[in-house]
Amino acid sequence: MAIGRETVENLLKLAKPRWKTSITKVEPNRIITRGYPQEDLIGNISFSEMVYLLIKGEIPHENHAKMLESVLVSFCDHGITPPSTQVARIMASTGAPMNTCVSGGLASFGKHHAGALEGSMCLLQKLMKDYVDSNGSPSSSNDLKSLALHTVEQCLEKGKKIPGFGHRFHDKDPRPGKLVKTAKKYDCFGVHTELAVYIENLLLEIKGIRMNIDGANAGILSDMGFDWRFGTGIFMIGRVPALISHIHEEKTVETPFRKFVEFDDIYYTD
Amino acid sequence: MAIGRETVENLLKLAKPRWKTSITKVEPNRIITRGYPQEDLIGNISFSEMVYLLIKGEIPHENHAKMLESVLVSFCDHGITPPSTQVARIMASTGAPMNTCVSGGLASFGKHHAGALEGSMCLLQKLMKDYVDSNGSPSSSNDLKSLALHTVEQCLEKGKKIPGFGHRFHDKDPRPGKLVKTAKKYDCFGVHTELAVYIENLLLEIKGIRMNIDGANAGILSDMGFDWRFGTGIFMIGRVPALISHIHEEKTVETPFRKFVEFDDIYYTD
Amino acid sequence: MAIGRETVENLLKLAKPRWKTSITKVEPNRIITRGYPQEDLIGNISFSEMVYLLIKGEIPHENHAKMLESVLVSFCDHGITPPSTQVARIMASTGAPMNTCVSGGLASFGKHHAGALEGSMCLLQKLMKDYVDSNGSPSSSNDLKSLALHTVEQCLEKGKKIPGFGHRFHDKDPRPGKLVKTAKKYDCFGVHTELAVYIENLLLEIKGIRMNIDGANAGILSDMGFDWRFGTGIFMIGRVPALISHIHEEKTVETPFRKFVEFDDIYYTD
Amino acid sequence: MAIGRETVENLLKLAKPRWKTSITKVEPNRIITRGYPQEDLIGNISFSEMVYLLIKGEIPHENHAKMLESVLVSFCDHGITPPSTQVARIMASTGAPMNTCVSGGLASFGKHHAGALEGSMCLLQKLMKDYVDSNGSPSSSNDLKSLALHTVEQCLEKGKKIPGFGHRFHDKDPRPGKLVKTAKKYDCFGVHTELAVYIENLLLEIKGIRMNIDGANAGILSDMGFDWRFGTGIFMIGRVPALISHIHEEKTVETPFRKFVEFDDIYYTD
Repeated sequence: MAIGRETVENLLKLAKPRWKTSITKVEPNRIITRGYPQEDLIGNISFSEMVYLLIKGEIPHENHAKMLESVLVSFCDHGITPPSTQVARIMASTGAPMNTCVSGGLASFGKHHAGALEGSMCLLQKLMKDYVDSNGSPSSSNDLKSLALHTVEQCLEKGKKIPGFGHRFHDKDPRPGKLVKTAKKYDCFGVHTELAVYIENLLLEIKGIRMNIDGANAGILSDMGFDWRFGTGIFMIGRVPALISHIHEEKTVETPFRKFVEFDDIYYTD
Repeated sequence: MAIGRETVENLLKLAKPRWKTSITKVEPNRIITRGYPQEDLIGNISFSEMVYLLIKGEIPHENHAKMLESVLVSFCDHGITPPSTQVARIMASTGAPMNTCVSGGLASFGKHHAGALEGSMCLLQKLMKDYVDSNGSPSSSNDLKSLALHTVEQCLEKGKKIPGFGHRFHDKDPRPGKLVKTAKKYDCFGVHTELAVYIENLLLEIKGIRMNIDGANAGILSDMGFDWRFGTGIFMIGRVPALISHIHEEKTVETPFRKFVEFDDIYYTD
Repeated sequence: MAIGRETVENLLKLAKPRWKTSITKVEPNRIITRGYPQEDLIGNISFSEMVYLLIKGEIPHENHAKMLESVLVSFCDHGITPPSTQVARIMASTGAPMNTCVSGGLASFGKHHAGALEGSMCLLQKLMKDYVDSNGSPSSSNDLKSLALHTVEQCLEKGKKIPGFGHRFHDKDPRPGKLVKTAKKYDCFGVHTELAVYIENLLLEIKGIRMNIDGANAGILSDMGFDWRFGTGIFMIGRVPALISHIHEEKTVETPFRKFVEFDDIYYTD
Repeated sequence: MAIGRETVENLLKLAKPRWKTSITKVEPNRIITRGYPQEDLIGNISFSEMVYLLIKGEIPHENHAKMLESVLVSFCDHGITPPSTQVARIMASTGAPMNTCVSGGLASFGKHHAGALEGSMCLLQKLMKDYVDSNGSPSSSNDLKSLALHTVEQCLEKGKKIPGFGHRFHDKDPRPGKLVKTAKKYDCFGVHTELAVYIENLLLEIKGIRMNIDGANAGILSDMGFDWRFGTGIFMIGRVPALISHIHEEKTVETPFRKFVEFDDIYYTD
């Protein structure tokens, strides 16, 4: 029996869909994100709840929403010092459009810049996972203290830096203390953050190094169940507004195409 | 009298600073954004308040904070259909890092994609400014209705599209209605949004075209006092979380380096 | 009669091919670019012939190949002074991969940077086209001299810069003279370049401003028949090798994540 | 004795130059690349000689220049199939500017795409270096054959792919044969390429897999003394012209903002 064209078309399409997604379903006049019509989300959930919904697939408990909001706020800006901000502003000065400049700023995160959050999350999550696999959950703070000691000793021995500790501009980064306090307030202070605090105690005693913003947020986000692979993503969500503000400032306050480098800033080698 | 080296250094530096900024002041152990120490902002202001503070230089009234939050939520995602999302996922499939893929997604906003918000804000702000310059503030809705009629007639005559109206996937975009309702709730429904609504009424009658998300947000953001040049920036803040979610989905659910194009998807011309 | 599945599939595909191209046909074990099997091009044509073939669809006469080669060589590098090179190197310093850094350098070309070639090509091509449309081809150098005079007068009157003339680092850019000489040698000196030379003569007399590299190449590429929309593209082909060299130098000679901005490079405003 | 301001300024500058480079020295009216005034290079050296000069710091012998030219030509284009080309064209369709689209194409090279050249160069260079360190230079082809056998056995054992062999669209890539032949003609066929050929012989016999363009160029570029870290850079130099051609084709032949994805291309999962 002959089959109709439409039947065949549908069969072919079902058999070989080019794209699949669980994030948002788009139909004429309907946009459903993670199961919720967007018109029901607008005005009803906060931006941090939206971020959580998109990344984890569900609307968070209130404490988690408040904590994520604080994490995002903490990443807001570090002035002119980050290379990513310099890149965004140099691009702005050439007259590149706003989106291109933000894009350039984000592309500037290399392994030495903005990678510490993921590095620290990865370390803490791996340490806890290995610990739990071999010992069951930590039954006391002493377990975490031993784990911290072992970790610090190993890194010192190998001359390796521990990501999330030390800052090239601050001896005492003013943000992690407030973050840890906020985590306690919102019941998001768990074993990962506790471990990070013990590591800080040891590093402070031995080398005079303190936890930085990445170390604090690495612990907190891990305790909230975020996979370390989202670290740079979450950092970017927090940092994009400042990039936009810097780009606008460069475009409106400074002379277009100003010279960032003068002849006598350059030294020639052979 | 001889002058000391330090004095000269300082003089030279003051005379010729390479960078200047009013956004964030960074000193050892102190990070002050728009006048506020960051440790006082973390845990105390919402993310949308932070966005407002960075862009406009002050913490907003509660209604404005809630409205901006709703605007950001409304831009969250449109599934696989936007070219920017396709670009971000294709890049994710090649194994490019998260930040590169987000960067690629944002770079994909060209004049035909994601420009309608700025276009619509620019139009509404220009219309109102010209109106106010020649007539003083609109004294009644009738003034705005006339302005809307004049605008629509002119555009129809020239065969020009009005940015912020019509959608290539939806006859009736489900988001603008909720946004306008929310604007009324938070006292952010002003002359720009009212003008947009009158334009919609006319376009709906004449051409069966409705306001889209960009038209609604253009009116609202204009009524909140945002310069149109921030349009794409605000859109990007709202959209980045979805890009991150799509990139993660592509990296974890799909086969790496999958074929987005098959031999028989291609037709050769001379 | 029933139709077979394969027939239907083929019909559907032919009816709705997603992509079409005339550049390169790819079949199993065959890659045909602009009609030539690639294995016949490798070892037989020069890189500039390949560029010409890709862009214009045919292999050029020898003179055009040599001239294009000279144009590409002339765009090679301008040291540390271009913002695009600074961006590429700052990104290299963060540890971003080579391709990301080149990408960032190219994204840095905004309307004030690297746009002069297209601007100059566009101007010269428009001037000649308008002239030819109204007068037929220029019958003598006097015609071109008048056109140059008219152009310069109009720009001076409006206070507009003429793209392709003047340089922010050089009074007398050393490259255009050699380019014009080379164009004469390879029989690529036509009306566009002649017009550019007349404009230079006038600007030099009136304002002490000379032709720069973009003005010379704009004339020459226009005389070779390149549409002005390829200007930035051709410039990028010439510049990419230097970006790669700078990125490698940054990565191998400098300390990773070096500070491009020190505390006292920054001045805070309110 | 008092020191003059100028003296101090110069001392300070010499003591702390912000940038240093050996590539191009720029002074008013003089641009010296790798020791050569650019006006002496224009019209006198080929583009591949310029690439070599920028990367390796000297003008190559004629054979090397011809060989590098052939390598660059071989990377020209692979039609619509590479994700980087799809990204560049999707971005072109949104109306993004030419340089942004090229930038997006290049940013799309992730670890699964366009990394095989560097991977293959790295492998061949490491194999030869280890061999030479322990055995002195290979004294006969038999030495290289043993090294190839050892390498293939190890990879097969670990189930690892050898970069530079096998192609997802071609059983027999038409380019490597011509490249190897050209390398012999220009005296650039050395131990690295010979080793690659032996590896191919073994893989063909055991698994029916042949050398691809990256394997051939990896051997040849290694024999020409290019550090493997330049692999992706050299590939990009060769590929940029095609990206420009594709972007122009998309912008001029296709409808702006065409739909690359239709509703029924998408399948929704939970």
